[in-house]
Amino acid sequence: MSVTGVAELEPAELESLLAAFHHYEAALMVDDVDVLDRSFAPGPDTLRGDANGLLVGHERISAFRSVRGGVARRTITEVRVRVLSPQAALVVSVSAFVAGGSGLQTQLWERIADARPRHDGGGDHGGRWVITSAHVTGAPPAVNRAIWRVAGSPLVPALPTSSSGPRPLEGMSVAVKDLFAVEGFAVGAGVPEYLAGAAVAEVDAEAVRALRAGGASVQGIAQTDEFAYSIAGRNVHYGTPPNGAVTGAIPGGSSSGPASAVALGQATIGLGTDTGGSIRVPASYQGLWGIRTTHGAVSATGLLPLAPTFDTVGWLTRSAAALRAAAAATLGGADDASADGVGRVGGAARLARRFAVSRDIVASCESGVREAFDALIREPAIRGVDDAQGSPPLEEVDLGDLDAVFAAFRVVQGAEAWRQHGEWVQAHPGVLGPDIAERFDIAAAVTADTEAEARAVLAEARERFDRVLDGRVLLLPSASSAAPALTATPGDIQAVRAATLRMTSVAGTGGYPAVSAPLMRVPDPVGLCFVGPRGSDLALIDLAASVAADLGHPL
Amino acid sequence: MSVTGVAELEPAELESLLAAFHHYEAALMVDDVDVLDRSFAPGPDTLRGDANGLLVGHERISAFRSVRGGVARRTITEVRVRVLSPQAALVVSVSAFVAGGSGLQTQLWERIADARPRHDGGGDHGGRWVITSAHVTGAPPAVNRAIWRVAGSPLVPALPTSSSGPRPLEGMSVAVKDLFAVEGFAVGAGVPEYLAGAAVAEVDAEAVRALRAGGASVQGIAQTDEFAYSIAGRNVHYGTPPNGAVTGAIPGGSSSGPASAVALGQATIGLGTDTGGSIRVPASYQGLWGIRTTHGAVSATGLLPLAPTFDTVGWLTRSAAALRAAAAATLGGADDASADGVGRVGGAARLARRFAVSRDIVASCESGVREAFDALIREPAIRGVDDAQGSPPLEEVDLGDLDAVFAAFRVVQGAEAWRQHGEWVQAHPGVLGPDIAERFDIAAAVTADTEAEARAVLAEARERFDRVLDGRVLLLPSASSAAPALTATPGDIQAVRAATLRMTSVAGTGGYPAVSAPLMRVPDPVGLCFVGPRGSDLALIDLAASVAADLGHPL
Repeated sequence: MSVTGVAELEPAELESLLAAFHHYEAALMVDDVDVLDRSFAPGPDTLRGDANGLLVGHERISAFRSVRGGVARRTITEVRVRVLSPQAALVVSVSAFVAGGSGLQTQLWERIADARPRHDGGGDHGGRWVITSAHVTGAPPAVNRAIWRVAGSPLVPALPTSSSGPRPLEGMSVAVKDLFAVEGFAVGAGVPEYLAGAAVAEVDAEAVRALRAGGASVQGIAQTDEFAYSIAGRNVHYGTPPNGAVTGAIPGGSSSGPASAVALGQATIGLGTDTGGSIRVPASYQGLWGIRTTHGAVSATGLLPLAPTFDTVGWLTRSAAALRAAAAATLGGADDASADGVGRVGGAARLARRFAVSRDIVASCESGVREAFDALIREPAIRGVDDAQGSPPLEEVDLGDLDAVFAAFRVVQGAEAWRQHGEWVQAHPGVLGPDIAERFDIAAAVTADTEAEARAVLAEARERFDRVLDGRVLLLPSASSAAPALTATPGDIQAVRAATLRMTSVAGTGGYPAVSAPLMRVPDPVGLCFVGPRGSDLALIDLAASVAADLGHPL
Repeated sequence: MSVTGVAELEPAELESLLAAFHHYEAALMVDDVDVLDRSFAPGPDTLRGDANGLLVGHERISAFRSVRGGVARRTITEVRVRVLSPQAALVVSVSAFVAGGSGLQTQLWERIADARPRHDGGGDHGGRWVITSAHVTGAPPAVNRAIWRVAGSPLVPALPTSSSGPRPLEGMSVAVKDLFAVEGFAVGAGVPEYLAGAAVAEVDAEAVRALRAGGASVQGIAQTDEFAYSIAGRNVHYGTPPNGAVTGAIPGGSSSGPASAVALGQATIGLGTDTGGSIRVPASYQGLWGIRTTHGAVSATGLLPLAPTFDTVGWLTRSAAALRAAAAATLGGADDASADGVGRVGGAARLARRFAVSRDIVASCESGVREAFDALIREPAIRGVDDAQGSPPLEEVDLGDLDAVFAAFRVVQGAEAWRQHGEWVQAHPGVLGPDIAERFDIAAAVTADTEAEARAVLAEARERFDRVLDGRVLLLPSASSAAPALTATPGDIQAVRAATLRMTSVAGTGGYPAVSAPLMRVPDPVGLCFVGPRGSDLALIDLAASVAADLGHPL
């Protein structure tokens, strides 16, 4: 141990500081959260950061600890104390993990007034030592298995090209959701037991191949909620990927791994799927751009289905430009959005700024999201300018009974999911996490009559949506709330899921493309969702990007 | 920005602190090492740590910077200042990387007396602000490509077993050097251009299969020096893996990736090869256990050769127990070292503590290593106890002209390496790093006569070694020095390589097994090498472990 610094501590004070340090370390080893909580200074200014971000305030730090489940066993191998005043010292320590590797901790300890008895039984020197700021670095794993099933440098290179010159996706890397075939690898669908029985793919899924042909390499195969049947982004087998935008929040799913990989800068493009929100929700929760494409626009060859009536392919990126590049490389549209007013992109005419909103669809959102949305749609970039040359104003539309649509969507999704996976699920009892297992249980009970009725409801809704929207772009929040905290209860998650699916099922029902753009903050990110006519995919990205630019949002 | 704390800074002082902070950040972005060096407090107490470890003292921090090559482009998104005294403040900042992801910096700034003009042009408040301690967390990549070519969770599972109950390697993970075939992957040998042309393996190398049959999973395929033709552990294509034991030092090679992976706790077992020291040297540099097995003891099927006359398979681990388990699972020896006095393990009788040392072989070591070695062999556990029941004392032996042996070893190694890889090297000019390319150039010039002469020298040396050692275990340092710093010049590295190969070529020439045990510190780790009779592999591990235990070394 070394002690340096401009000030000096009396021996008894140094001893009490070190006692507090070791008391804290001992509490870490047994995950005694009461001692840990008490070792940190109370109040809103206390800091605790690691590779997943910075937590501010004792309350958030305490909440984080409550779900952390302890830390890796370690011993302290080096302690360096720098005394800054009789009341403050920085303690930098190195730890050796029992499972190998080392860690680094920087803690600012300060002596604060406290009426409670001191833990070390020492005399009263006018307070106790607490941590006011901590920075922790653990031993990094080979790969973060919550994000990646397998990753490389790269895992699979771009396809060779005969042409010279750069390709549109040159230098970009892709995190492939573990539902798509990647040549040489099996599809695991977020379920290790399923992976164990899966065959190695001999060819890439078409959506993978398109990106590789565009010049992108595959960084790795990224995690998904089990069989993609969730929008939370939690996986009982591999863990919960970190939310790259909100420290201590769930990432959103089911394209959770690709989304986190992109948000954390570990890949340029997340290749995902969206059945009931699986791209829009993680994009919203992590401040990313994302699109679910028009149903059927991207080949599902090599993709493990969940509910083929609604399953779509899409991408998650940090920028609108990368999103457009991935979409253009796959959809084969002309890669020139700025041609002329009547230019057709991706098979669709340029979209005019004719927006629609629905009061009812926003009703299930948390109030903060509703307020942010209401404020956003009053911006001139969206509501239009009421002059002769201006866009037509924002129109309010009535989409009909959305609760009935949502109920029918769930029935058909469940029936198809059961047809797809029911046999496997029945043959592997106890394998799936409780929430997904319950979903399959409910799906198993759907009768043919119930399904037929639900399909009729959806068919009617689809016609109604087409008629009411009439070529307009529907605007809505991408999710009913910002990302829930990791401490959210299963009940909280279920409630958020229902509220969000009620909103996202409109695009699913209509087979519409939907772009989520990171344009709201409450203060955590929430996406603004642009739902366009079928086939307008590229034009919809361009529209969202131009709105974002008008709003002063960095692209 | 938030400013909190028990003390307050005058507005001008706070301004000058923030100016110093932003001046430092700006210097980081352009890698202005002069400003960076001046921003850190001079002297031996200054600290700078990240996931690769803690650097202590301005000099080491400055050296680290000189070879870092700048940092990733970023912007500061959040700054929190905690004022501790008029002379000290902690600044915690969050950064957003241009390439995605975020970082966290904790810096302790102190005002020190300084006669030089202030960088910000402000008034003189009795000193300038400098960093006395910094803790940095960057955005983690999907995989550290300096360590891993590809990694998973796991990449390949253990082989299924028909028997119930735990297997010897159950729960262990393996970092496979990128010379061994792993089913479903090509061998890259540390050369991306070679990898691009390599076929996917249909079956595991036998050494891989043995570990998987023992219950271990493959964590990933780990990096190697190009074609394993180096002991430094630097790769111009993938970068230099971090030394898990010595911050800012080279890892040692050519089994560099497996060694770093094990030292960092990212794998339990590193599967490597050792032709001229490629397991012993990284084991020595990173404080690991390692063994090169008896030549021919482990099948080379599925292994890309370098110089088959000397190539051997071996393992790197953090503990003697894991080393023994890996060796026993592969060599098929009885996995019970403590049976009885005449128990045969791995086909060899228990080895007695009959040790030999050679003055000459230690001559090429750095003085610190010589001194540590001389002190170690005076320990009773090694020199023996001079009483009736004691072991025979340590014996000094004369191994003959080691320079001639080393020269002949290099010639034969070169000739074989050229036969193996020369055609590919010639067809791919400019691909290899300069040091490896030079080695192949020299190898290409070896004539048949020169090779034949060298083989004769080696054959004679082998007979002489057998005779002189006479069943004794030769002790020597595993390398001529501790791990050189990353700042070492190519000339330094060449010199260390020659000095070390002169020592390691004894085992190579004799086909002997050699265990490197982490039993010396100078103060960085240096291995004690046990060179035993051919076929004594498991017994040699047991012997080294029992010596380590007697020396009070943790196993």
